[in-house]
Amino acid sequence: MPEPISFYFDFISPYGYCAASRIDALAARHGRTVQWRTFNMRSVNATVLGADKPLFLLPLKGPYFSQDVPRTVKWFGLPYDPGSVLEFNPLAALRAFWFLNDQNPQQAKAFAWRVMQAFFAEKTVPNEPALVAAFAEEAGADPQAVLAYLDAPEAKARLKRETEDAVSKGVWGTPTFRVGDQLFWGCDRLQMLEDWLARGGW
Amino acid sequence: MPEPISFYFDFISPYGYCAASRIDALAARHGRTVQWRTFNMRSVNATVLGADKPLFLLPLKGPYFSQDVPRTVKWFGLPYDPGSVLEFNPLAALRAFWFLNDQNPQQAKAFAWRVMQAFFAEKTVPNEPALVAAFAEEAGADPQAVLAYLDAPEAKARLKRETEDAVSKGVWGTPTFRVGDQLFWGCDRLQMLEDWLARGGW
Repeated sequence: MPEPISFYFDFISPYGYCAASRIDALAARHGRTVQWRTFNMRSVNATVLGADKPLFLLPLKGPYFSQDVPRTVKWFGLPYDPGSVLEFNPLAALRAFWFLNDQNPQQAKAFAWRVMQAFFAEKTVPNEPALVAAFAEEAGADPQAVLAYLDAPEAKARLKRETEDAVSKGVWGTPTFRVGDQLFWGCDRLQMLEDWLARGGW
Repeated sequence: MPEPISFYFDFISPYGYCAASRIDALAARHGRTVQWRTFNMRSVNATVLGADKPLFLLPLKGPYFSQDVPRTVKWFGLPYDPGSVLEFNPLAALRAFWFLNDQNPQQAKAFAWRVMQAFFAEKTVPNEPALVAAFAEEAGADPQAVLAYLDAPEAKARLKRETEDAVSKGVWGTPTFRVGDQLFWGCDRLQMLEDWLARGGW
């Protein structure tokens, strides 16, 4: 089997939601599997990129993305009724992902997708550990174990390590796909990624 | 006839080069024409976006785009042997474009494409008015008239007005396409733009 594609994302990104809806099927068409990997986008923005303001508050870029996001989500055929990104603190969900992933990556994907549905399509801001644990339970995990994990220092340390690992691979935006040493940033790169897999690069 | 698509670009952008190679044919498939429009990207970066460093010198983003640009240009099937973006001052070419465009938009497009070929495929940095005028002559314009224009205050003022006009429409990156009030940023949005034209929006 060829190396899995790495799919790096943070729950705050609607483009990550778009990408998540297609990446596994895309990879499967080329005999590949996908390793989903959450990371802390805001931490990368603050510590590596020096971006101190949310995208939606920037001049010109803010209005652009306010127009582009609903248009893109609809283009992907996905429902869109989002919660407020300014109210969303995804840390509990980002951290819980890794607990689930260690036990069962398929469960972790189902959980991640559920979190995205809640935030992007059900106007629900999944900040609270109790809600995160409930989504983990829907995906087949033990909610009490998730809550215990989120209370332990390892939850924070693990997400930090995974974020550092993503950065060490060159990741700086969400979503990013990695195939070997090739990075593809953005859900609008899915077609290029697919061509890359089909042709074995160029 | 429906309103022309506006195609905003600066010669410094390899993604603009990719976009320029396809936008007219894409538009024609949907009964549209394209108005090419140069603007001063570095001025927008400095005065509106507060981006004070060239993209290629940024941490993480620099290495990413160094990988992505040749990969994307090749994906578009275009030759790529670029000059140094740090040495490139596109002001003369950006300004000359508007002189040609007022006389003959098709000449202006041929000129713009020639400038892009020189910079992106022939490792030539088209900074000097004499070279810019020579490219204008290849496109069918009077090179002496171009040189006289570039010496007059209007050349600078016109590009400034066009850049302000682009910003007033919400443009902040190169390339950007505008269809009515819809902006599409990036050569990786050509497919979405084409779908938008085919369906009449969604």
